[in-house]
This record gives sequence, structure tokens and C-alpha cells, in this order.
Amino acid sequence: MEVIKTPEAMQRRALELKRDGRVIGLVPTMGFLHEGHLSLMRLAREHCDVLVVSIFVNPTQFGPNEDLEAYPRDFERDETLCGQEGVDMVFYPGAENMYAGDASVWIDEHALSGVLCGTSRPGHFRGVCTVVAKLFNLVLPDLAVFGEKDAQQLRIIERLVRDLNFPVEIIRGPIVREPDGLAMSSRNKYLSESQRKNALCLWRSLRQVSELFEQGERETTVLRQAVVDSVESVSEAEIDYIEIVDDTSLAPVDEIKSAVLVALAVKMGDTRLIDNAGLRP
Amino acid sequence: MEVIKTPEAMQRRALELKRDGRVIGLVPTMGFLHEGHLSLMRLAREHCDVLVVSIFVNPTQFGPNEDLEAYPRDFERDETLCGQEGVDMVFYPGAENMYAGDASVWIDEHALSGVLCGTSRPGHFRGVCTVVAKLFNLVLPDLAVFGEKDAQQLRIIERLVRDLNFPVEIIRGPIVREPDGLAMSSRNKYLSESQRKNALCLWRSLRQVSELFEQGERETTVLRQAVVDSVESVSEAEIDYIEIVDDTSLAPVDEIKSAVLVALAVKMGDTRLIDNAGLRP
Repeated sequence: MEVIKTPEAMQRRALELKRDGRVIGLVPTMGFLHEGHLSLMRLAREHCDVLVVSIFVNPTQFGPNEDLEAYPRDFERDETLCGQEGVDMVFYPGAENMYAGDASVWIDEHALSGVLCGTSRPGHFRGVCTVVAKLFNLVLPDLAVFGEKDAQQLRIIERLVRDLNFPVEIIRGPIVREPDGLAMSSRNKYLSESQRKNALCLWRSLRQVSELFEQGERETTVLRQAVVDSVESVSEAEIDYIEIVDDTSLAPVDEIKSAVLVALAVKMGDTRLIDNAGLRP
Repeated sequence: MEVIKTPEAMQRRALELKRDGRVIGLVPTMGFLHEGHLSLMRLAREHCDVLVVSIFVNPTQFGPNEDLEAYPRDFERDETLCGQEGVDMVFYPGAENMYAGDASVWIDEHALSGVLCGTSRPGHFRGVCTVVAKLFNLVLPDLAVFGEKDAQQLRIIERLVRDLNFPVEIIRGPIVREPDGLAMSSRNKYLSESQRKNALCLWRSLRQVSELFEQGERETTVLRQAVVDSVESVSEAEIDYIEIVDDTSLAPVDEIKSAVLVALAVKMGDTRLIDNAGLRP
């Protein structure tokens, strides 16, 4: 397994691989890998010859009061896991190599980014779009796999690819959960024992809303309130947002007539967790 | 010579060419080709196996009160000229194929775009950056040639490539002038006979400022005033801007100690013309 640490070296290798007709698959990550990431790697592996995993805690997608410094890192462990998964290349650049001091070009998505996490995290999706475009230009993947846990990010990246014509197929990787249902996340590490237990309210509330939907409920005010009640019944849980939106446009929906996304962000102490589920009539 | 009319077909062909190890050169144009464009094609040809010329009057770089509708077009003539220059592919897409009705991803450059033409043409460089990124992703060029007449655009595109890591080498093509010195431009077609004669004030003023500089003048207020006086001595000429800025940062300069760009935009009636010259101490 190659570990590549500079953008120049990565792009050089990618150009060589493309010239040899190899199909490159990319799984972009911020490291501190868990089973969710590994499932994305296995999915990418099915579609490519050369599997590249990028590990980069991208500073530009963190807000000034967010957890950039505290974000968990363990490159040695990540490297071992990538090796076990048969990853061909790990791209592990330093932030100083990824962004010039006077960097001034940014990519913004203007339709899907203003809701959900975009409200709580201004500038977040600018950072995401810009770094993903950079990774695409450095790794030159034929396909890239992104997880459905970051549902809004996934839709914004699909839009990025469509609107800027990147020659990259985006593959959606299903959410991977702990045995009790908590969506896997590098940030779960921050949780205390009691927070870890209470964090189950995200998944539980999504299951409850799915059951109500199965029973025929279509009014989103009713469905949303069920999620709110379920989350609020738990101590330490503070709702950031709970929304039921159109699955494609992320616009608010009153009565469910086509696929919607139930998306929520909840703070457990200082730790902000997200989860989501689709409802399809 | 192939003429390719859809983004999908262009990208498919480009991917085939890359797989075959061919070096692709791109000259992006808005058509109505003149000797300036042809010189860019000859320059690109020296560096590539496959020469692609795009012809696309990009609506997103025109402001609401600008000349999008009136912009001169003559595809048959352009096609003939490209054939004569040995162009391999002409990419000639319709605007409806280039932009989705709900397009929402835009690229902005935030350091070099707020001055010169960026002041007179808000949104112009967003349109330029976005369409150039799209063309890069569709044509997959190894190199692209842009003319020095659009000096600010050239620097912004170099920044775009640097900051988003596009695997594209940007080559600068020198300004091509009519025998009397007027910089070639598709918009010269708009000029009446007297305007055409008076339009020479742009080039004349740049030559005057170069002479003053050669004689040792380094104060930009003095140099700039000479340009202003020279342009204002001509009837019908209305100054949009005349600036002397740092050649790299485009920031204002008081005393010239390193390379600067003298850039001007002048309206002759309804027609806005630009020109520029570098001064190197």
C-alpha cells in the first residue's frame, strides 16, 4: 500500500494510472476510520481497479467554534485498517500542502446548502464542495463513494458533479450502525457513557417516525412532532434541527406524496450527532 | 475535424483520448474567431496531440444589460477557420445543454475579481470560472491557452487551476493586434468607422505610458494621468477604468518597484473595449 503525502505526488500517480487505463475509486474520509468507512471502501472496491482512500481533516469545513483541533486522529490505526481492506493508496496530505496561504477560489452550492446542517454550520458546505473538487482533481477518480449518513452532503456533492461536469460517478454507501442502532461516527468517541446510551434517541426517533409512516400518517407536522417528543424525552439531548424535507430538493414538505428525508441533528453535551432516514410512499 | 455538440459526447471522446495516452490541448473561445484566436490555436498545437477548440457564448458571464444577444456569431465561418488551422475537434454546445435549469453550483474567485473588469461587470468572473471548470471537466485538457488581452481573466484562471488543483497547464498567448495597433476582439465588429479610428486611443495611450516608463517615470499617478489624458483627447471615448496594478495580485501600486499591469477599459459608444500592457522595471 502506498502512502502519498503531497498533492503533486498524488496527481502524478493518478495521471500515470489513468494513462494505463486503470479505473480509480476514491473514498474521501477525515480519518479515525470505523466500520462505516470500511463499508464504503468495500463498495468502492467492487467498481474499481485502484482503490484510493484520502485521509484529510479539512480545516475549511469547520467553523471557528467547531471541533477542528479536537477532531480525533489516529493515522497509524487508519493505515493498518486500510491495509487490511486492501486499499492501494492512502492520500494523506497536510493542510499546508492542500491550501495556499492566499487561496481565493471557493465553490458554493446555492440551492441545497442553506437548510439543515447549512443553517447550523455556515460555510461548511463551501469547505466540503471545495475540498471534494480538489480531491477529484488530484486523485482523478472514475467513481467516488460517499456515505448516506451525511445525506445533505451527498446530495450537494451529486449536484457539484452534475453542475461542474466532473467525470466522476458518485455511489451512495448505506449508513452503518452499531449493534444497538447508533449510526457510526468518528464523533461518537466524544460521548460519555451516559451520553452514548442517550444518543440512541436519534435512531429510536427515526424508527418511530417510520412506524407512524407505515401506519399511514402523511402529515409532516405530526411526524416531526413524534421525533421531537422522542428526542426531548432523553436527558442531555438538545435538538439542533429536526426536518422532513423533499428527498431531492431538500425543500420543506407538508404532506408526504413522494420520497422525503427525515433528517436530524442533536447535541449530546458538546457533541453534535446527525442521522437520517428516508420515507417512500 | 469532428464537431461535437453535447457535453456528454465531448466527455466520452475526451475519456477515450486520455485512455489512449493522447495529450489534449484546449482553446476556449466564444466564437466569431479572429487572428487572435487563431494564434492561440497555433500555440496550443505546439504542445498537444489533439487540439480542441470550444465555441460557446457563455450566458453566465454576461450581465443583464450586456451584449449577450447581440454578441456576434458565425459558426460556419468559425468551422472553416478551425478546419484551416488543423483543429481536431470543435466543441460547440448549446447553452441548454451546458446549464441545468436548476444549476446551483458556482465558483467564485475572491481576491483578484473585485477590481478592474470585476467592478464594471459584477458576476462576470463567477461565470468565467464556472464555465472554464466545466470545460476542463468535459474536454479533460492537459493544457489550455488563454489570451493575454483578457489579463485579469488569465490571472483568475491561473488561480482557479492552482486553488482547485486542476491537472491543466495554462499557457499565456500574447495579444494580437491589427496593423495599426488595435487589439483584436470580436467586439471590434460593433465599431462605426469613426469609432474604429478613435479606438486606437487605447493602444496609443499604452505606448505613451511605456515610453514615460522607459524614460524613468515610476509614479503611477503620473503615468495613469498620461493614459487618461491620451484617451480623453479622443471624441466618443468614455473611460470605464484605467488602472496600474501589481502584475500578480492586481492590487493598486503607487511607485513601480516590480512588474505592473496597465489595464484599461474604454467605451466607444456602446462598445466596451479592453487592452493592457505590462511594465517591468
